[in-house]
Amino acid sequence: MPEWTQPFVDSMKDVEFSTDEEMMKVAVDLSRNNVVEGTGGPFGSVVFETDKETGKSKIFAVGANRVTTLNNSTLHGETVAIQFAQKKLQSFALKDRSGKKEYSLFTSCEPCAMCLGATFWSGVSRIVCAATKADAEAIGFDEGPVFPESYVALEKAGIRVCREVLQEEAASVLKLYAETGVIYNGQD
Amino acid sequence: MPEWTQPFVDSMKDVEFSTDEEMMKVAVDLSRNNVVEGTGGPFGSVVFETDKETGKSKIFAVGANRVTTLNNSTLHGETVAIQFAQKKLQSFALKDRSGKKEYSLFTSCEPCAMCLGATFWSGVSRIVCAATKADAEAIGFDEGPVFPESYVALEKAGIRVCREVLQEEAASVLKLYAETGVIYNGQD
Repeated sequence: MPEWTQPFVDSMKDVEFSTDEEMMKVAVDLSRNNVVEGTGGPFGSVVFETDKETGKSKIFAVGANRVTTLNNSTLHGETVAIQFAQKKLQSFALKDRSGKKEYSLFTSCEPCAMCLGATFWSGVSRIVCAATKADAEAIGFDEGPVFPESYVALEKAGIRVCREVLQEEAASVLKLYAETGVIYNGQD
Repeated sequence: MPEWTQPFVDSMKDVEFSTDEEMMKVAVDLSRNNVVEGTGGPFGSVVFETDKETGKSKIFAVGANRVTTLNNSTLHGETVAIQFAQKKLQSFALKDRSGKKEYSLFTSCEPCAMCLGATFWSGVSRIVCAATKADAEAIGFDEGPVFPESYVALEKAGIRVCREVLQEEAASVLKLYAETGVIYNGQD
């Protein structure tokens, strides 16, 4: 992750989040910073750890898109956040064996085909999305083979899905990026 | 990648491959070695670089599943091979700008939802698969939301798809793993 992320995360390390909107704001701020700092595509993600008893959540790991800056098409916001979270938990599945905590993935845009699959394997209990597939596609990004049935499969696997939280704010970051950034697709 | 892979690759560094079966044998051998050495799940992948004029191919990068051994659910054979190949090419899309070469992904098992999406972004011109989704699911792995339409989307994006090359040999590695290895799924 780029240098600016550490102070960004440190400034919120003791913050307890209560609502989806508060949590999504962190993901959208990450996406905007990534554009402004020129460190990757307009996508940010956060894994939150939630205390199931109190319902309060803390930032557990963050990710931002690093495709163009690290020459690696697998480093989307979601996959980066998932990898850091699993490294921190020292587990390939984001599950708390005591059952007291759960992990959620907040992402500034609905996942592409790869990241929807990555969510499936990550062990998160929930995925919350801001901007839509249509918002990403409107500025030229392709999201790949994501179908309504893909979301049904997530729900069937026990992953709760919530969409369009702070959608307008996240879509405005995509538009900001469209003015200056590189729109990449694997086949270009 | 585990230590055994370097001598494995070095032993074939000057080999020019001509047929899909010869190339797939490398991916299946990787998957078998990964099981025998205890370094991950029963999945191996190879990115080949093909000279379009002669039709001859060389190993460009390899990957094996490292989920359980590195506590990282994103490190499937395909994603590992793609990342090493992009690092070598110093590009986030496996495309030769001169048009003289192309890159293919050979994988010992049909891709899960994440890896099918990753293939989409990788820039490869072709994906060739050995064991089937059904073979993987027969030993307890879930492949996630992969649909016939997912493959249609790959073809539409210009990625040629070829399936069931050395399928039986690859399926036998899955069965070998089922006797000893950890079957992991994100929601377990």
